[in-house]
Amino acid sequence: MSADPTSSPFLAACRGERPTRRPVWFQRQAGRSLPEYRAIRGTGSILHAVRDPALAAEITLQPIRRYDTDAAILYSDIMVPIAAVGFGVDIKTGIGPVAEKPFRSRADLDRVRPLEPDHDLPYVAETVRLLVRELSVPLIGFAGAPFTVASYLIEGGPSRTYTKTKALMLGDPELFRELLSRLAQHAVASLRAQIAAGASVVQVFDSWAGALHPAHYERYVLPHTRAVFAGVADLGVPRIHFGVTTGELLALMATAGVEVVGVDWRVPLDAARARVPTHISLQGNLDPAVILAGWPQVQVEATDILRRNGAHHGHIFNLGHGVLPESNPDVLARLAEFVHAQPVGSNVEDQA
Amino acid sequence: MSADPTSSPFLAACRGERPTRRPVWFQRQAGRSLPEYRAIRGTGSILHAVRDPALAAEITLQPIRRYDTDAAILYSDIMVPIAAVGFGVDIKTGIGPVAEKPFRSRADLDRVRPLEPDHDLPYVAETVRLLVRELSVPLIGFAGAPFTVASYLIEGGPSRTYTKTKALMLGDPELFRELLSRLAQHAVASLRAQIAAGASVVQVFDSWAGALHPAHYERYVLPHTRAVFAGVADLGVPRIHFGVTTGELLALMATAGVEVVGVDWRVPLDAARARVPTHISLQGNLDPAVILAGWPQVQVEATDILRRNGAHHGHIFNLGHGVLPESNPDVLARLAEFVHAQPVGSNVEDQA
Repeated sequence: MSADPTSSPFLAACRGERPTRRPVWFQRQAGRSLPEYRAIRGTGSILHAVRDPALAAEITLQPIRRYDTDAAILYSDIMVPIAAVGFGVDIKTGIGPVAEKPFRSRADLDRVRPLEPDHDLPYVAETVRLLVRELSVPLIGFAGAPFTVASYLIEGGPSRTYTKTKALMLGDPELFRELLSRLAQHAVASLRAQIAAGASVVQVFDSWAGALHPAHYERYVLPHTRAVFAGVADLGVPRIHFGVTTGELLALMATAGVEVVGVDWRVPLDAARARVPTHISLQGNLDPAVILAGWPQVQVEATDILRRNGAHHGHIFNLGHGVLPESNPDVLARLAEFVHAQPVGSNVEDQA
Repeated sequence: MSADPTSSPFLAACRGERPTRRPVWFQRQAGRSLPEYRAIRGTGSILHAVRDPALAAEITLQPIRRYDTDAAILYSDIMVPIAAVGFGVDIKTGIGPVAEKPFRSRADLDRVRPLEPDHDLPYVAETVRLLVRELSVPLIGFAGAPFTVASYLIEGGPSRTYTKTKALMLGDPELFRELLSRLAQHAVASLRAQIAAGASVVQVFDSWAGALHPAHYERYVLPHTRAVFAGVADLGVPRIHFGVTTGELLALMATAGVEVVGVDWRVPLDAARARVPTHISLQGNLDPAVILAGWPQVQVEATDILRRNGAHHGHIFNLGHGVLPESNPDVLARLAEFVHAQPVGSNVEDQA
């Protein structure tokens, strides 16, 4: 069944309302850190796996059986829509999204036609429908933000410098704008299809926007992200926006038309809070590497995050980025338990 | 000859004194972006090239002939000391520093013996001596900060997540402390040798410290960086400290015992200024990717940086990270000219 907003701590915290317990989930909670995932996943591309609704639903459910998390997140990938319209991308294990023929000129726009979800990726909505029948927690649908998807298309793969992306952004802003505008349509169409099928929340990943000067972000990127969130505003589901190394962008991200801003671990949660309006909820922000240090250290760090949050209702506990493949699931299970055990709306400073 | 502090705009700005013109240099100004570098460099490891003082001096001088920069920076690498004591590292073109046998346990400390500059890397001081005879601008000596050098040893190469480094830092803080303490000795010994040979300024690169939560940085990393700067304090040369994605760390970095903090492009210069005491000078902070967009865009962005600096004397114009190999040297030459043409100690807001 679909989650009831009045009883979901996650949905309550998204809206800044008092949750019945402190909500927690883990970015990339499904995936390589779970032995049961490695057992059923096989070796093919994730782009193939997501076309099998039964498999994608099962992978989505695996962490829910292990961890008492307050939300599930659809097993999918931010490159699914652009792959579905035939741009020519794949996701290589251990590397990430790669485009054999990167985006270089106006002619490449021909490979970025509008997304028609019913026709191009019916399997996504089908997976969502399977899931909401099973789940008793909200399902998070998601999409890549136009900038981050564009960066893979332009670079041809993951990058440390985003040189080609920035060169196009600054050197041919009109073409860059057209590309991001088309990618915004993909995100809106994909998110609307997920919500129609039963997703109760959406998260938009602008994972690499933190590579930009804030003024560049505001001028060349934020308008397209705003278009994505505006495009689902009428559907009334909470909207989360997340990226890494976004310390200088948090205030701008909070203006994108969202209820929740995700924070990576570089910015202490109280510092992040000071950069966004009070009505914005925050999600985060434990360094995923801390999980590898084992329980006592995880408890210390989780306590510090809750202390920095103080008594604000609008906090969803999470990692500051995705679960690392080397993580011990038992530590994550214990972390969820620990967060749930802390009283809501109180300062946990002296409790750990 | 060695530079005279009273006439060097760069040294004046390092000390927050009024420079005779706005100083500028470019991180990684020597290297792959210059055709004359590619012509003489050959294909071997940089660790071999730096052992040839005539070659290393020539490469250091190449950008000085092209650009009217206010400082030269020694052609070397942050891994030179750890390579010289025989840890077993190489620098692979297009990849970066790699260690075939990474640092994993206490036994690996045997490969991190103390550095004796006269014995282990006499070629570095020899290169410095050759250079200060030729140069009419200050020569910057440099070293890697303990954390960043350690990250290469522990990861075995460049990383996006620094998982192993953080796992060791949090999981075995005593071993981590011992490793960083030894690497601090290397940095101090190497910097003292460079200064004794004629370097007039030192820069310490903690390139990847920005991957850390500020509290982790302060607890596990900063004490070792402080030891490095304290170890050269008696020599009286200005000290610069630089890293990327350090927006949340700038205030802490400013307490490391330095005159200058380097800022990457993610933090607008006026925002950076607000995070450090007034007596600290700043270096930066143009996004290196902007150079690829060509002159008109470079002028716009450089003007914005100077405007954000206002009339503060303690500013050294630079890129926010190293020159990208794809950069056009003519654009950098024009940028140095442009910065020099702006009046000192005035607000350039309406002049561009």
